Amino acid sequence: MSPFLCCFLFLLLLFLSSAAGRLLRLAKPDPSAAAATARWLSSQNSWGVLSTISSDLEGSPFGNVVSYSDGLPGHGRGVPYFYLTALDPTARDALHDERSSFTLSEFPLGTCGHIDPENPTCSKLTLSGKLKMVEFNTTEGEFAKKALFTKHPEMEGWPENHKFRIFQLNIEHIFLIDWFGGPKPISPSEYLESATNRVSVF
Amino acid sequence: MSPFLCCFLFLLLLFLSSAAGRLLRLAKPDPSAAAATARWLSSQNSWGVLSTISSDLEGSPFGNVVSYSDGLPGHGRGVPYFYLTALDPTARDALHDERSSFTLSEFPLGTCGHIDPENPTCSKLTLSGKLKMVEFNTTEGEFAKKALFTKHPEMEGWPENHKFRIFQLNIEHIFLIDWFGGPKPISPSEYLESATNRVSVF
Repeated sequence: MSPFLCCFLFLLLLFLSSAAGRLLRLAKPDPSAAAATARWLSSQNSWGVLSTISSDLEGSPFGNVVSYSDGLPGHGRGVPYFYLTALDPTARDALHDERSSFTLSEFPLGTCGHIDPENPTCSKLTLSGKLKMVEFNTTEGEFAKKALFTKHPEMEGWPENHKFRIFQLNIEHIFLIDWFGGPKPISPSEYLESATNRVSVF
Repeated sequence: MSPFLCCFLFLLLLFLSSAAGRLLRLAKPDPSAAAATARWLSSQNSWGVLSTISSDLEGSPFGNVVSYSDGLPGHGRGVPYFYLTALDPTARDALHDERSSFTLSEFPLGTCGHIDPENPTCSKLTLSGKLKMVEFNTTEGEFAKKALFTKHPEMEGWPENHKFRIFQLNIEHIFLIDWFGGPKPISPSEYLESATNRVSVF
């Protein structure tokens, strides 16, 4: 292969890797900084699994892949906002029973290296609480919409007749594993008041 | 940058991309082949979110990041097997209430392109049913152990005193979105009897 073609392909692959979100803006905090690690995971991911109590499946748990945002890039607040339609079971479930959990993995960020996704040093975060609808024409609704549409630009064009609504998870319990030795105890206030502000080279 | 250095970096990046599992062995089936798409997602992913009814959180749903395998590479059977310890809430929950769901996304496979993870054409699969322990010294236990340890080699070295056990999800309900127009109706038998055998260039 010509070195010049090779060079072009390298730059193309680098661009595609970057576009897929694998070159991160914020460096991962030290695992001992549990709340900062949890906030880092929330700010760096763009999707996760939202679990509800299923109305269709007689109270079984039901996990669904959803996109989310906790704020404008670099200014996340830690509370995940979602853009859901009641055509989908997750929103219907939440309107019937608000109890839910939102689960994120570090693995798709590409920062776990070659360890297994279940290895405790590849961080896992589960935020549990109540999933509540947020009215559009409120200060919070405007913040959430901007947060969602900035991180997920195509949402703005999703069909109006699907009646997408904004939901937020009111966090009551946090489960984080980011190292050996079991889950780290973090309270919702420790999580919400933590900041992730270490900027990496990329 | 020297074209030769560029060439070296291209090959290195290509190798790393491949090592991270983004160059897939099996091509994605056509979205109209719903059962085959679901089986493709099960066979190509290596981790997902397993949701249970939480004993610790008074019956709330609890999603946890877990690794899994449905068989030896290229010979998956569609039933996900897990390697879990009762030190973790998921296994404890299942021993108390077997109802659970396992959720997979196509997004981390890298085949969704630049669409949003919540876009319906980026496939999402939720298998719901009962999470049951599998005895090691049975034909199924041997199959599951081989399937898990082949796909997740580091599992074999996980601490014995954590008492990891094999679990399987007995599938009773399938939720798949792989295109516009809502979830595709697939029965567990259609899913289990489907085959994914189209081999791609990679």
